[in-house]
Amino acid sequence: MVTVFVHRDGKTEQVTSIDRAWLNPAAGVTLWVDLAAPSIPESLILSETFRFHPLSVEDAMSARQYPKIEAYDGYLYIILHEIENKPDQHCFWTHDIDFFLGPTYLVTVHDGDSQSIADLRVHATRNAKMLGEGPVALFHRIVDAMVDHYRPEVEKLEERLDQLEEAIFADPTPALARQILDEKHEVASLRRIITPQRDVIARLARRDFVDISTEMAFRFRDIYDHLVRIADDALMFHDRISGMLDAHLSNTSNRLNEVMKVLTIVSTIFMPLTLLTGAFGMNVPLPRFPGSEAAQFWWLMAISIAVIVVMLALFRRKRWI
Amino acid sequence: MVTVFVHRDGKTEQVTSIDRAWLNPAAGVTLWVDLAAPSIPESLILSETFRFHPLSVEDAMSARQYPKIEAYDGYLYIILHEIENKPDQHCFWTHDIDFFLGPTYLVTVHDGDSQSIADLRVHATRNAKMLGEGPVALFHRIVDAMVDHYRPEVEKLEERLDQLEEAIFADPTPALARQILDEKHEVASLRRIITPQRDVIARLARRDFVDISTEMAFRFRDIYDHLVRIADDALMFHDRISGMLDAHLSNTSNRLNEVMKVLTIVSTIFMPLTLLTGAFGMNVPLPRFPGSEAAQFWWLMAISIAVIVVMLALFRRKRWI
Amino acid sequence: MVTVFVHRDGKTEQVTSIDRAWLNPAAGVTLWVDLAAPSIPESLILSETFRFHPLSVEDAMSARQYPKIEAYDGYLYIILHEIENKPDQHCFWTHDIDFFLGPTYLVTVHDGDSQSIADLRVHATRNAKMLGEGPVALFHRIVDAMVDHYRPEVEKLEERLDQLEEAIFADPTPALARQILDEKHEVASLRRIITPQRDVIARLARRDFVDISTEMAFRFRDIYDHLVRIADDALMFHDRISGMLDAHLSNTSNRLNEVMKVLTIVSTIFMPLTLLTGAFGMNVPLPRFPGSEAAQFWWLMAISIAVIVVMLALFRRKRWI
Amino acid sequence: MVTVFVHRDGKTEQVTSIDRAWLNPAAGVTLWVDLAAPSIPESLILSETFRFHPLSVEDAMSARQYPKIEAYDGYLYIILHEIENKPDQHCFWTHDIDFFLGPTYLVTVHDGDSQSIADLRVHATRNAKMLGEGPVALFHRIVDAMVDHYRPEVEKLEERLDQLEEAIFADPTPALARQILDEKHEVASLRRIITPQRDVIARLARRDFVDISTEMAFRFRDIYDHLVRIADDALMFHDRISGMLDAHLSNTSNRLNEVMKVLTIVSTIFMPLTLLTGAFGMNVPLPRFPGSEAAQFWWLMAISIAVIVVMLALFRRKRWI
Amino acid sequence: MVTVFVHRDGKTEQVTSIDRAWLNPAAGVTLWVDLAAPSIPESLILSETFRFHPLSVEDAMSARQYPKIEAYDGYLYIILHEIENKPDQHCFWTHDIDFFLGPTYLVTVHDGDSQSIADLRVHATRNAKMLGEGPVALFHRIVDAMVDHYRPEVEKLEERLDQLEEAIFADPTPALARQILDEKHEVASLRRIITPQRDVIARLARRDFVDISTEMAFRFRDIYDHLVRIADDALMFHDRISGMLDAHLSNTSNRLNEVMKVLTIVSTIFMPLTLLTGAFGMNVPLPRFPGSEAAQFWWLMAISIAVIVVMLALFRRKRWI
Repeated sequence: MVTVFVHRDGKTEQVTSIDRAWLNPAAGVTLWVDLAAPSIPESLILSETFRFHPLSVEDAMSARQYPKIEAYDGYLYIILHEIENKPDQHCFWTHDIDFFLGPTYLVTVHDGDSQSIADLRVHATRNAKMLGEGPVALFHRIVDAMVDHYRPEVEKLEERLDQLEEAIFADPTPALARQILDEKHEVASLRRIITPQRDVIARLARRDFVDISTEMAFRFRDIYDHLVRIADDALMFHDRISGMLDAHLSNTSNRLNEVMKVLTIVSTIFMPLTLLTGAFGMNVPLPRFPGSEAAQFWWLMAISIAVIVVMLALFRRKRWI
Repeated sequence: MVTVFVHRDGKTEQVTSIDRAWLNPAAGVTLWVDLAAPSIPESLILSETFRFHPLSVEDAMSARQYPKIEAYDGYLYIILHEIENKPDQHCFWTHDIDFFLGPTYLVTVHDGDSQSIADLRVHATRNAKMLGEGPVALFHRIVDAMVDHYRPEVEKLEERLDQLEEAIFADPTPALARQILDEKHEVASLRRIITPQRDVIARLARRDFVDISTEMAFRFRDIYDHLVRIADDALMFHDRISGMLDAHLSNTSNRLNEVMKVLTIVSTIFMPLTLLTGAFGMNVPLPRFPGSEAAQFWWLMAISIAVIVVMLALFRRKRWI
Repeated sequence: MVTVFVHRDGKTEQVTSIDRAWLNPAAGVTLWVDLAAPSIPESLILSETFRFHPLSVEDAMSARQYPKIEAYDGYLYIILHEIENKPDQHCFWTHDIDFFLGPTYLVTVHDGDSQSIADLRVHATRNAKMLGEGPVALFHRIVDAMVDHYRPEVEKLEERLDQLEEAIFADPTPALARQILDEKHEVASLRRIITPQRDVIARLARRDFVDISTEMAFRFRDIYDHLVRIADDALMFHDRISGMLDAHLSNTSNRLNEVMKVLTIVSTIFMPLTLLTGAFGMNVPLPRFPGSEAAQFWWLMAISIAVIVVMLALFRRKRWI
Repeated sequence: MVTVFVHRDGKTEQVTSIDRAWLNPAAGVTLWVDLAAPSIPESLILSETFRFHPLSVEDAMSARQYPKIEAYDGYLYIILHEIENKPDQHCFWTHDIDFFLGPTYLVTVHDGDSQSIADLRVHATRNAKMLGEGPVALFHRIVDAMVDHYRPEVEKLEERLDQLEEAIFADPTPALARQILDEKHEVASLRRIITPQRDVIARLARRDFVDISTEMAFRFRDIYDHLVRIADDALMFHDRISGMLDAHLSNTSNRLNEVMKVLTIVSTIFMPLTLLTGAFGMNVPLPRFPGSEAAQFWWLMAISIAVIVVMLALFRRKRWI
Repeated sequence: MVTVFVHRDGKTEQVTSIDRAWLNPAAGVTLWVDLAAPSIPESLILSETFRFHPLSVEDAMSARQYPKIEAYDGYLYIILHEIENKPDQHCFWTHDIDFFLGPTYLVTVHDGDSQSIADLRVHATRNAKMLGEGPVALFHRIVDAMVDHYRPEVEKLEERLDQLEEAIFADPTPALARQILDEKHEVASLRRIITPQRDVIARLARRDFVDISTEMAFRFRDIYDHLVRIADDALMFHDRISGMLDAHLSNTSNRLNEVMKVLTIVSTIFMPLTLLTGAFGMNVPLPRFPGSEAAQFWWLMAISIAVIVVMLALFRRKRWI
């Protein structure tokens, strides 16, 4: 679906076709063309009306592109990623939004699910002045909204990490290994989508491209700060995850130690006693303890208890119990 | 085998010998010379007709070269690697393709198995205009085809990693260690062949060399993007593999813990019972339980069951069962 | 709460409102405005009186900002972090202090708990000359005090690490794993807050901004040295922590080895003896040892002792005991 | 031993003393002075005849120098390392060769064992023209030979790694740990000697020094390529070694798991049976199984076999057997 | 203690007070002022006579500074570390030496234990010309001596590592873990003190500061080479230590494997035999073996030996023994 907003003479209106004369900066017109999940015929607007370079059009029409910014003759081509809020899945799932940013126009291409652009479209119909700030300010508004959507997801991730860390020490189970590795994937995904976008915005903030005014550079620097903080959080999450893995491994070893101590203590106590009963069950006459026949048993009990006490004392000294 | 395509006066024809006059830019001739597994006499064309520098000729004639781009007087010498689709083996197996890129000619040297060049040779015989775009465009077409051949292999690798990850948690066996390490080799191979090629293409996209027009630089930037994405995938694969190794190690430890728990539980239950039977097998008279002779056995059974119940309760409290 | 100090004609006085004429460098006035936990109406001073850029005002009013330095038209906007001395918690807990550094003024914004600024406020009321050194010197004084507050915390951390290291070798318990990981968090926090502040101060010391005199650059270089040393300590702490984790893991393995040796030694000694008593308890007549009926027992004792001695000798040779 | 080759008027001859006039570029003389394990008096030629800087002379006369290239007034001082082929040891053992490269002369200093220089000395006596190419070409020939000597050693190392990798999976023994660590040392040695030499040659290939012609820079670029490939191989070897260590560790854990499974299975089967025999050995009358006295035994056998079958079925379900 | 050497008119003499006129380069005087553990009044010479910047004086008077080089107006302020030879401790223990290097003077400040400066003081009293070379040459002499003192300590460390590596494979004990970690601290200390000093000297060798002549830059390059080699050794030591930790961990695992194998073998042999004796001890009549009553025992022995042989054969096949 193609939506075209035109700002002329202080008014913004939605139109259905584009006059190529508007693209001339001298015309004093600002144009926002939004292509939501464009069909092939709709996409011809990119190559025929705007005459964008075929390579950038091809990139815009294909999915799963990498965030980047490229200068072409007369326009910047930018790919950024918007986060999707799918409730049932953890992974930082994103879709591309492609921007063609020219001196008088902004063209956005996406798969139709972009919340940021939907919000702005509503805004544009109500606010006549919004497009009057020029295409760079419009682009900044969209990117600002996109980056704001990352923060809640990052906070959810942080909460999950807090819970996981608590669980590792409070209630260690082997199944935590899988959860830790799942969250590690999450953090890696976050880093993979944030880092290239941060670099794209950094170039805008540094004014690598002439079309950016000082004022807009300040605003992009602000977005850049947000992305730096998220990237920094992601790095910290990464460190925490590797600490959790260490803790989990250490827990597993400690549990093994505990299991083995129980086995060793039990064996060390029962083996001598079993030997004793075996010895007194032999067909070979054993020297008798002093006392009556009935006293023999109590002698054995005494010896057994002595063995147990000595063993426990030894284990206590080894700090096993 | 030497194949020579000449583009003159808007026509492309296949000829058998080269006129040195064609190498003069003023002649308006575009030349593509393809040496497939050249014999020594055939290779003389490089040193005698084209008078390439002996070092570049030597590199072109030897196998297992590293991807690189080198400027010589009047031409660029480029080595890139094409992937081979050997069905029965995993390893990213490649062979060199050498390019001599001059102002009016492209010379390609390879071992005769290059699918990309074979395809283009067919194309060149049919399409008279193709060579007319000049040697850089021709070179770009070959490289574009070469890089496209990487993608399916990368996807196969990704599928294998998905399966492996599933297997690690669903059906952990010691043999998985070898598979993980084999795939780690794969990923390392992929990184080793992609990274230098990405750097070669980056230099072309950045127009480090004067012979590249802006338009061609755009196209090389596109190939560069593909290689960046593959390199990024390889890095992600590397992370996933190391996560799998951690998971595998953690699985092994957990299995050991489980085995030891079984042993400890069994020993802890049976040792006291065996001691009891030993005690009642002694030649020493034991105090009798109240009741008849037959009741003695049921007393023992009761004691045994009590021991078992207590032990199981203890293990339950330790969360072992 | 807003506190305003004005230095005019060699005198410093506290005033309640600001005359915009003072901001003109020609007025020869130095101004220090401190906003401690400013209310919304109080914060208007930033946007209305000083006319700071909205983005910097927004940053100053929001918490948990990242340390940074940004040049705006006519002033520098700086965020630094002061450490909080909370006795009951380990974590390097900090709060932001925001600085607006102009040619004739310093504006500080914080949450009201800053010890460094409180100290300086007392100082400013007593020392008429202090503000006379200009806003950069004033800014330097605050930062110097802030950085000095880090040192005692770093030393406490170092002491805790010393104790922990001692404990790992002297009295290894599984609970140490959690302590090690807690301190690892601490060290990571320290690195996260020091590194960006070091980079901010480095830019001041390198005189990236024109407003810094050589003399002030020398002083910032001194602060920079302090931060470099803390960052270097943090890196060393990080190395020590990872050494402790290795030691802890090695301890756990060694304890397991020791437990298993005890079990194996006990089993290896008692199993043959138990077999012996079992054999002599069989209903099957065994060959008799030479000697009387009573001597049979002593033969068995001799055999048992021989078994024990041989086993112990074997274990001694394996260096197990 | 000092050997002096002089190239004058198209002829190369071996002389015994040096005329300082030859060092004047205008004399049209090319000089190669080789000092093999020079005595102190022989070394005076460096300081007195050539008047080299004392620091470079001192470096040349001392052993175990680090590869480097240094520009002094009028000459380059270069240290490179030649590999020694000691059959009985693994370690990449090298000795220094020192080069003083001036506009009309090459002075080489080494400990007398250099195969590359020995070969070239033979060559120089036979080929009158060789010295005529100038001292840089002569230097290139020596370095080219030196670098060629690395390749066979690298291939031997690769073969040993292949064997080791095979052994880790086919025949894992604890002794492999030592072999893996020995080879890790090897790879580290290789990296340590290749990297600085690669950097020295890179500076020559980049023409950091004015004395290098374009043609010679091409040739040094070729040597540089060889060193890059060896350094790349060393990096890959390093990765493989760390993969082997992981595999070895995983093997050790798996072997432990296997051992413990055997113990647990054996214990779990025999402990109930032993308890059963103990119970029937008690002096307490047990309830009789139905049937004759002889049938009692077969009842016990049936119970025992049932216990064994149940246990094995449980272990099979746990996938232990 | 303050010692002042003055070089005037080709003579060096020790004086007790400083004439500020000497600091004028035109005076042709070279001055060396050494402050050994200066008292507060003695330190006034820095601020009052030489009028050094207060920040550099403060640094010079405080201990535990980080190596650095700083340009102030008219002089360089340098901090380097000299190693202390304390026989009973391992740690690379150092103390600061502070240098103020001006056009006509060198001021050294240290805690009085510096061997390098003590040696040079003796030298200065004997050699009239030494100070005549200028303050940079004097500074170079001290630094050269300081760096030479590192080498023997590095070699001692290398010997200790050799012994430790030998012990790990020859006589592995749990106590080695502590030794390995102690040496890891040592190596980390060495790296921490060498790296910043190398960077200080590199800046002198690169002539970042105008006061350094080409000749002196050559000499600093020589010292720089020494420091590079020590830093490189430290990096290699670091790698060796981590290899030792791996080996130690692998040893611990292997010892555990060995212990468990012994336990499993012993259990697997004795459990069936004990079951056999238990079975023949039951009150239940067992089927008789063919032959006489006495033969029954030999049948049992034969069965037992068969069990043992079969078990040992199985273990042999598993390569456990």
